Amino acid sequence: MEWPPRYSENFTPNLDQEYWSPELETMPPAERDKHILAKLKRQVHYAFENSGFYQEFYKDAPVDPANLASLEEFAQLPILTKEDIRREQEEHPPYGRFLCVPPEDIFRVHGTSGTTGRPTVFGIGKEDWDRIGEAHARILWGAGLRPEDTVMVAAVFSLYVGSWGALVGAERLGATCFPFGSGAPGQTERAVEWSTTVKPSVLYGTPSYALYLAETARQMGFDPKEDFGFRFMFFSGEPGASVPATRRLIEETFGCYIVDQGTMAEMTPWMSASGCRHLDGGMHLWQDIVYTEMVDPQSKLGLPLGEEGVPVYSHTERTSQPMIRYWSGDIARWDMVDCPCGRTYPTLVAGIYGRVDDMIIVRGQNVFPSRIEDVLRGMDEFGGEFRLVLERETGQMDRLTVQAEVLNEAFASREFDPSALEPVRERFTGALRRAIGVSVAVELKPAGEFERTQFKARRIIDLRTH
Amino acid sequence: MEWPPRYSENFTPNLDQEYWSPELETMPPAERDKHILAKLKRQVHYAFENSGFYQEFYKDAPVDPANLASLEEFAQLPILTKEDIRREQEEHPPYGRFLCVPPEDIFRVHGTSGTTGRPTVFGIGKEDWDRIGEAHARILWGAGLRPEDTVMVAAVFSLYVGSWGALVGAERLGATCFPFGSGAPGQTERAVEWSTTVKPSVLYGTPSYALYLAETARQMGFDPKEDFGFRFMFFSGEPGASVPATRRLIEETFGCYIVDQGTMAEMTPWMSASGCRHLDGGMHLWQDIVYTEMVDPQSKLGLPLGEEGVPVYSHTERTSQPMIRYWSGDIARWDMVDCPCGRTYPTLVAGIYGRVDDMIIVRGQNVFPSRIEDVLRGMDEFGGEFRLVLERETGQMDRLTVQAEVLNEAFASREFDPSALEPVRERFTGALRRAIGVSVAVELKPAGEFERTQFKARRIIDLRTH
Repeated sequence: MEWPPRYSENFTPNLDQEYWSPELETMPPAERDKHILAKLKRQVHYAFENSGFYQEFYKDAPVDPANLASLEEFAQLPILTKEDIRREQEEHPPYGRFLCVPPEDIFRVHGTSGTTGRPTVFGIGKEDWDRIGEAHARILWGAGLRPEDTVMVAAVFSLYVGSWGALVGAERLGATCFPFGSGAPGQTERAVEWSTTVKPSVLYGTPSYALYLAETARQMGFDPKEDFGFRFMFFSGEPGASVPATRRLIEETFGCYIVDQGTMAEMTPWMSASGCRHLDGGMHLWQDIVYTEMVDPQSKLGLPLGEEGVPVYSHTERTSQPMIRYWSGDIARWDMVDCPCGRTYPTLVAGIYGRVDDMIIVRGQNVFPSRIEDVLRGMDEFGGEFRLVLERETGQMDRLTVQAEVLNEAFASREFDPSALEPVRERFTGALRRAIGVSVAVELKPAGEFERTQFKARRIIDLRTH
Repeated sequence: MEWPPRYSENFTPNLDQEYWSPELETMPPAERDKHILAKLKRQVHYAFENSGFYQEFYKDAPVDPANLASLEEFAQLPILTKEDIRREQEEHPPYGRFLCVPPEDIFRVHGTSGTTGRPTVFGIGKEDWDRIGEAHARILWGAGLRPEDTVMVAAVFSLYVGSWGALVGAERLGATCFPFGSGAPGQTERAVEWSTTVKPSVLYGTPSYALYLAETARQMGFDPKEDFGFRFMFFSGEPGASVPATRRLIEETFGCYIVDQGTMAEMTPWMSASGCRHLDGGMHLWQDIVYTEMVDPQSKLGLPLGEEGVPVYSHTERTSQPMIRYWSGDIARWDMVDCPCGRTYPTLVAGIYGRVDDMIIVRGQNVFPSRIEDVLRGMDEFGGEFRLVLERETGQMDRLTVQAEVLNEAFASREFDPSALEPVRERFTGALRRAIGVSVAVELKPAGEFERTQFKARRIIDLRTH
């Protein structure tokens, strides 16, 4: 097998084809495992040979990184965490000893913004960049993108890699790209003007952005269903696109279908977990591009299909800064689904619905913010935004209060008076209790109380003292 | 001659070469004119054949657009203005009948933000995009960029094309790109952190951005000369890089050299007017890429070398949305200079120092804001920012007041008291009078009075009623 694989620069499937790479996408899973093992053997050997970090990281590994015999042996390599990367890059700035190519061969520098600590730097070589384009074109083809489409990329172009991945994938596929970006003051109003003029057929952004775009359009006198021309949208960065009620809300608002995508910035090609044009929520794991294992959050041991755990990701064809067995910290459940697309990949059936760190334990029950979002968006009176306030009193269990906006119609022309809304509050409380299995406090707020975001919404207010 | 020209995808010169395309860059001007005529003949014929707009626009032309015999004939084609483009795109949205390729062949959609009217839409085909990369790599090679450099692109990635041009040119040249962007709240602080960590060797942005970056760095405790690693910077979007005092200020602040670049968004490849690593201010006109004529602002007739006028630009190898004889509205003076680089191009000797619309007439004298900036930045007490206030009283000539910040040191520890600063004000007034030939009013303001910008500074406050 040739490693790293070479792809034809100009190939695109016929328009009526379901798959970009029929063989890889519909392989029997056992056969795919062999294919993946062959790639991983080369990937791990390559990293071990060329990266000072992996030489040290694997020195006490119970298996031979230069010659892995099975996926079971692969699963015995140590798991790599964000903290490992930070420490390594702190000691060997800026890339750490991850780089397997000379620094002058780096084509692009990206990174994470470092909102939760030291920024992480990604050095990406030209060949990796081209493979990212190829992989993402293939995934976007599955999402329904075709060369005649115009893709508006409405996420900030900076360190953040999601927008660049969408751009390079759509470019490779031969679509028209409209790299609008986001994040500057007043930019959403301009996005409304431009997308009602240029009429892009596809939108990439975050689910929060799509909802904000619709709200802005309405304020400007446009009808999101009539005045835009979106055929579908693909999202990453937030769980919303697999949260059923949010999903339906976006689909109905714009009259289009939506596709959820994900993984981690560190993993580029960034959206190797991705739905297809048929899947109603959730994401297929395109295992031959980035190999995903599901592990137990505590034991870190592999979990079979059907289980909930933490996805652990590995590059299979990355030569510049490979990430092997990277701990995502996300929570998801994986399984085989009988998707009309016919792909034989395992699927994150409900998308990525939480983070290990976000999981709230209320009287012994695991609660994810995305589940609460789903319930709220199913309520007629819900006003569009919410916050979760977490408190801890000494010797007590964590207390969770759901602050939910309600629409003006819910309290007619009266001044906002929470006590008059008692029946609404009780309905919210009951629906949440039924969905998450425990009682939480609910406070109602007038619509517009909470800030809207164009990027990833931050909805958890943690007042607990640690 | 093959038109449009084809370029090798992988060519780069040897590191010690001054030129990317020695023959084209050092041709005797008369020979170059023949080369340009051959390209323009094909370009105009192509546009006339494939664009409904040009068919109509040229129907009363005194020359045959399908068969131009000379550059003099070319100069008899009508001049295209921003208003022409707006009207055409309004009537035939979104691109107007400029497009000479099917809309599905468009690779990128960009545009102008429309701050002064209807946005202008640019549809750019893949082959044009590749030629843009090639042309800009060649120009950046002349600016001193080499494959081992890391280029931080610190201008917003959105509709604005300058940042994308810098990116695609640096990519084609084989440099490492760090597309950081700009414009989001807090992004300049992060730019300081990242550029002191990743140490890019080259910066692209606006002159205003560079000064703002330095100011932000100092506030954060960094020394712009010690803690960054910039070898050179290239700028567009503002005249500052050819304003001598601004130029020296930036060079001294960062300990690097700077290169001025320009033309118009409509013209992509965007920086076909560009200095080289030798030129101390001003821009060579890379005529075989984009052909520049200099015309009289009133008569619109061609001006010889040595004269001041309005640059009129024409694509010579654009197949998607060609712009032919596009009126820039800028003011510049062109001439031949004896640049150590040896290129035989005409040069905008003082860069683009004004706009026809910006030109202020004070008691019969033409005054450009960039000249005032130059004087102010030469004053020791100058506090970094200024505004020009234009007023008109009935029956009077326009009155210009220069509001200039002065440094705290200029008034020691006293409260800010303009009257105590009378000697400073007189010095400013005298210097301005000597430089621009007429007296203007000067008002001093404390440093920090005026907002700093990351993008193009807007320094003219026009209170005239029109």
